Amino acid sequence: VTARGRGTATTGASVPSAGGMVLSLERMTRILEINTADRYARVEPGVLNGDLQLALAPLGFFWAPDPTSAPYSSIGGNLACNAGGPRTVKYGAARDNVLGLNVVDGAGRYWPTGQFTSKGSVGFDLTRLLVGSEGLLGVIVEATLKLLPKPTASRLMRASFQQVEAAAEAVARVMAQANTPSALEFMDAKALGLLRRYHALDLPQGDALLLLEVDGAANTIDSQAAAIQAACQVSGLLHFEQATDARQGEQLWAARKALSPTLRLHAPKKINEDVVVPVSQLPALIRGVYAISAEFGIEVVNFGHAGNGNVHVNFLYDPANADQHAAAPLAVRALFKLVLSLNGTLSGEHGIGLDKLPFMAEAIPAETLSRMRDLKRVFDPAGILNPGKVLPMP
Amino acid sequence: VTARGRGTATTGASVPSAGGMVLSLERMTRILEINTADRYARVEPGVLNGDLQLALAPLGFFWAPDPTSAPYSSIGGNLACNAGGPRTVKYGAARDNVLGLNVVDGAGRYWPTGQFTSKGSVGFDLTRLLVGSEGLLGVIVEATLKLLPKPTASRLMRASFQQVEAAAEAVARVMAQANTPSALEFMDAKALGLLRRYHALDLPQGDALLLLEVDGAANTIDSQAAAIQAACQVSGLLHFEQATDARQGEQLWAARKALSPTLRLHAPKKINEDVVVPVSQLPALIRGVYAISAEFGIEVVNFGHAGNGNVHVNFLYDPANADQHAAAPLAVRALFKLVLSLNGTLSGEHGIGLDKLPFMAEAIPAETLSRMRDLKRVFDPAGILNPGKVLPMP
Repeated sequence: VTARGRGTATTGASVPSAGGMVLSLERMTRILEINTADRYARVEPGVLNGDLQLALAPLGFFWAPDPTSAPYSSIGGNLACNAGGPRTVKYGAARDNVLGLNVVDGAGRYWPTGQFTSKGSVGFDLTRLLVGSEGLLGVIVEATLKLLPKPTASRLMRASFQQVEAAAEAVARVMAQANTPSALEFMDAKALGLLRRYHALDLPQGDALLLLEVDGAANTIDSQAAAIQAACQVSGLLHFEQATDARQGEQLWAARKALSPTLRLHAPKKINEDVVVPVSQLPALIRGVYAISAEFGIEVVNFGHAGNGNVHVNFLYDPANADQHAAAPLAVRALFKLVLSLNGTLSGEHGIGLDKLPFMAEAIPAETLSRMRDLKRVFDPAGILNPGKVLPMP
Repeated sequence: VTARGRGTATTGASVPSAGGMVLSLERMTRILEINTADRYARVEPGVLNGDLQLALAPLGFFWAPDPTSAPYSSIGGNLACNAGGPRTVKYGAARDNVLGLNVVDGAGRYWPTGQFTSKGSVGFDLTRLLVGSEGLLGVIVEATLKLLPKPTASRLMRASFQQVEAAAEAVARVMAQANTPSALEFMDAKALGLLRRYHALDLPQGDALLLLEVDGAANTIDSQAAAIQAACQVSGLLHFEQATDARQGEQLWAARKALSPTLRLHAPKKINEDVVVPVSQLPALIRGVYAISAEFGIEVVNFGHAGNGNVHVNFLYDPANADQHAAAPLAVRALFKLVLSLNGTLSGEHGIGLDKLPFMAEAIPAETLSRMRDLKRVFDPAGILNPGKVLPMP
């Protein structure tokens, strides 16, 4: 039984690779309750992230996870893979923004988890155990989501740097001061090179670009932005710019938004891995990725959520080219080895699914994997839920 | 085997009530690593919360959980009961501020959980499952804690209201705007009455008092405080005051800090229950608690973390008085019934331990409790860890 929302997972998690039945939750689209006084919403799993945001916006609230797929990905899917997005750096990922769930497990047992309140310390935390479990432990049939007040203002900023080392230093400095940005996005030299080649975008010089956003009440924006600008003053900063209005903010975002389509324009195939490293290891990650790219002859483009050290490493190649087709999986393997050597982890917001399954035994110690398999047996004794995903055979 | 930190739990969780061995972690007091660039600290479980804060403060960071016991409670204990405190309303509780753990489970197996990064979606979330599990699933022997940048400024405010309904409306309005306060503490008429009786404190009139704090970078404080003041303008507001300096802030906090000692002064025995209700149900909770107090002839005082709906209901009585001694447990039972009827939960930050065990079967559906017992068997097959706590016999 493979539960499926809108099928936007990038890891094959919702593909019924072992056969069996697909359980589509696509038509469970009811928003059951929005309670702004108590800051929660109860929804069915098929509600699209974007549809919930549209329902919440007029009430002055939002749900934090904002994956790029928000307009067409379901909340059930967002919960299953612990989805994030640019805002995660300030507001947390799916796991941080759920109060309770109603679940049907692998034995057909129906049970609720969690509570309606923003605090709770009553028994074991089944809620967060289910979030990010990619449909292996149970099917989420209802979720009580934590709502946050929608900031009434925001400002976008852009900083370009001579090298990635300088950008990483700025990221650490930004994250060490009390005005946590609502987005801290990174693009490397390869991403900037592609954008310059395909688009007439106004891009500053430099080998690394940060997009930084602050949000909040309107009268806090100037001082927040000033603090961010101060934190970005590192050796190697080439250019810093604050958007003066929403239109200019849109222009600054344009480069980031153009990236994914440009990648598809540039190469017939991309493999996007959402690896995470400690922020201080960002330069080592980017340098290492360039070395892997050179070694295997596969082009690479890096961008992502720098405040969390969550980088989308995109390998770009032509599967019709036999050499590249053979080299791509080797490059991916080398990337994961590199990430683990830097104290990083395989995924920040996409999950494991099918694609990263071969690397789990290297990433997670054997004893910890055994506990995960034990949990699988508890919630799904017959092993019928999303078989062949996430957990390698012992 | 009952793991024990500094034994400050209020629920009997660290009392070896079933006999056996106490495993003291009191001398595992090493701070193993503080990494500010990557915003984490690795600690042994016996490190005192307050000692870690002292080590972090000069570096400009803090760990979010701030229970009143911080100077003498251990981080292992804070993790075991998912400790919170006033700051939880803005920065989250223990569960929200841990990246990874090293655990020895009931079968003597040693395994790590989690990662060093602020994002991760790699297999099941064992980390948050262990946090708040009160020593029933494993013994935490090392923790990787998420650090946050220490705000450089803060301001305290005080608002008094005619009735608790008006205060609750102000709480909902404060929590619906984007300047989340770093503390939003509540005191009811009974608490204010006791303070007026025993102390020469400068207290405004009214039946409900809120203490509100904002923190952040210095140049955001004025605008944040203005937004809070605006949100407090409800019908029934009697008095609003901003502390003009740190000394005046201390004076405003004095009433809150005097409360617990005053309770001990006033009655030989108190039972403090840290129940939680949705914010909109705060007035119904307080009114209901007064009715319980009248019915059972037990004095009651309410205060706590209003932004989370987390109220410390304190029953005050004399155990030498046979009537009161007999009535107190009945009053507690009536309180939990009331809380559950208001969509609330038994504990926000203290946990279940021994004291709330008799109420678990009412609070948690049978099927959910069964899953918790299943988890207990996975991690502690012989049932040797903290027996007789949290989970009622089936």
